[in-house]
Amino acid sequence: MPNIKLTIEYDGAAFCGWQSQPNQRSIEDELKRALCTVLREDIQAVYASGRTDAGVHAKGQVVNFHCSATPDLYRLNIAVSSLLRDELAVLHSEFVADEFHARKSAKAKCYSYLILNRDAPVVLQRSRVWYVPGKLDFELMRKAAQELLGTHDFSSFQATGCQAKSSLKEIFSVRLEAAEAGLIRFEIVGSGFLKQMVRSIVGTLVDLGRGNLEIKSMAEIIKLKDRRQAGMTAPAHGLYLEWVRY
Amino acid sequence: MPNIKLTIEYDGAAFCGWQSQPNQRSIEDELKRALCTVLREDIQAVYASGRTDAGVHAKGQVVNFHCSATPDLYRLNIAVSSLLRDELAVLHSEFVADEFHARKSAKAKCYSYLILNRDAPVVLQRSRVWYVPGKLDFELMRKAAQELLGTHDFSSFQATGCQAKSSLKEIFSVRLEAAEAGLIRFEIVGSGFLKQMVRSIVGTLVDLGRGNLEIKSMAEIIKLKDRRQAGMTAPAHGLYLEWVRY
Repeated sequence: MPNIKLTIEYDGAAFCGWQSQPNQRSIEDELKRALCTVLREDIQAVYASGRTDAGVHAKGQVVNFHCSATPDLYRLNIAVSSLLRDELAVLHSEFVADEFHARKSAKAKCYSYLILNRDAPVVLQRSRVWYVPGKLDFELMRKAAQELLGTHDFSSFQATGCQAKSSLKEIFSVRLEAAEAGLIRFEIVGSGFLKQMVRSIVGTLVDLGRGNLEIKSMAEIIKLKDRRQAGMTAPAHGLYLEWVRY
Repeated sequence: MPNIKLTIEYDGAAFCGWQSQPNQRSIEDELKRALCTVLREDIQAVYASGRTDAGVHAKGQVVNFHCSATPDLYRLNIAVSSLLRDELAVLHSEFVADEFHARKSAKAKCYSYLILNRDAPVVLQRSRVWYVPGKLDFELMRKAAQELLGTHDFSSFQATGCQAKSSLKEIFSVRLEAAEAGLIRFEIVGSGFLKQMVRSIVGTLVDLGRGNLEIKSMAEIIKLKDRRQAGMTAPAHGLYLEWVRY
């Protein structure tokens, strides 16, 4: 049975998140349905590198599935993208070894987050960035972001209901940069992420930048292992799963 | 009477273009109506640096208008942006000399154009980029773009119905760059632009990049002063008025 790996882009606003939910349009269900239609067989399961929450976008989510026929991959990409037009597109597909598993085989993941920090409300980038008006201490935020590097217990950024076995994760790189016209781009690469971890980190960075938190250091917030000591959870629509490395 | 200059952002998809049209939502009418509401007086006219066509976006369109009262500019920005929520935002406002006129006083204008060149259809950037699949000769396009520099008669890129007195325009700078993941960004700065000039230039660059034109050189197309010798007109939704200099 061929094992096929797909790299996909999707608009988080179009779905209730990756995971199948009764009476809702999940990426898992819609993609599986499209694959069944295109391949004319009953695809049992589609595995993703991780479940993205409702509203979270992906520029390079990776999934895999097994099928009995050996399809033409170029046609597969076009057909699946057409069925999920405007919502999801297959960027790349390839045959992979039988043991490849989109989640279990993942070595590193990159997320980005976009913040629009200006007085005027968001227009052109609406539903693509988190609009944060008011003054932010950008240098303090940049310094705080660097304290995330390395292996830590990230319980302070773990949402309730997280099913991860361990809250120990390694962060390989972090970047916070001011782009054009009030746009701030955050990028984080790590071994894996807990539930809503990136959004809690971004919310905490913004709370730090606004001077809203009693604790002023990211290192200390990490050390406390207490979600209540960290800042708010940033909204989903500013978050992008950029890529997954294997 | 105070003369007020506004720098505005808008989503071209929300309007029928700058110019007032019967039974349609133009930026001119909607902005004028919002100003009348906020200032509680009858604003006679709002002048823009230029009329953008239906679908064309602006990140930094400049307009001016005269009013009798002297408003608080910070409140003005917020109130106008709120009335045109999600569609238009006032980025900046200031009092200017009586003789300032958004169009007549303009010295230079910058437009950008976004092309998405990849196999997979557009998802996250839909209605913000022109999706162009297939192979493009990027180096040829880059070379052709440089031939636009300087003062030329741009009749080859002038749409019918253009009301400009002269088709002689000066191009100060041109840039064509490949950004991430198939995104191509074109940027052009000039003394002024004819009707649909930037879109005809971009369409011609893409036609050149695809090998679709008999004439292979931009310089020669300019020299012929014949719209029929140039390429297609690129769609409006990839075009952005970036800024106007005075």
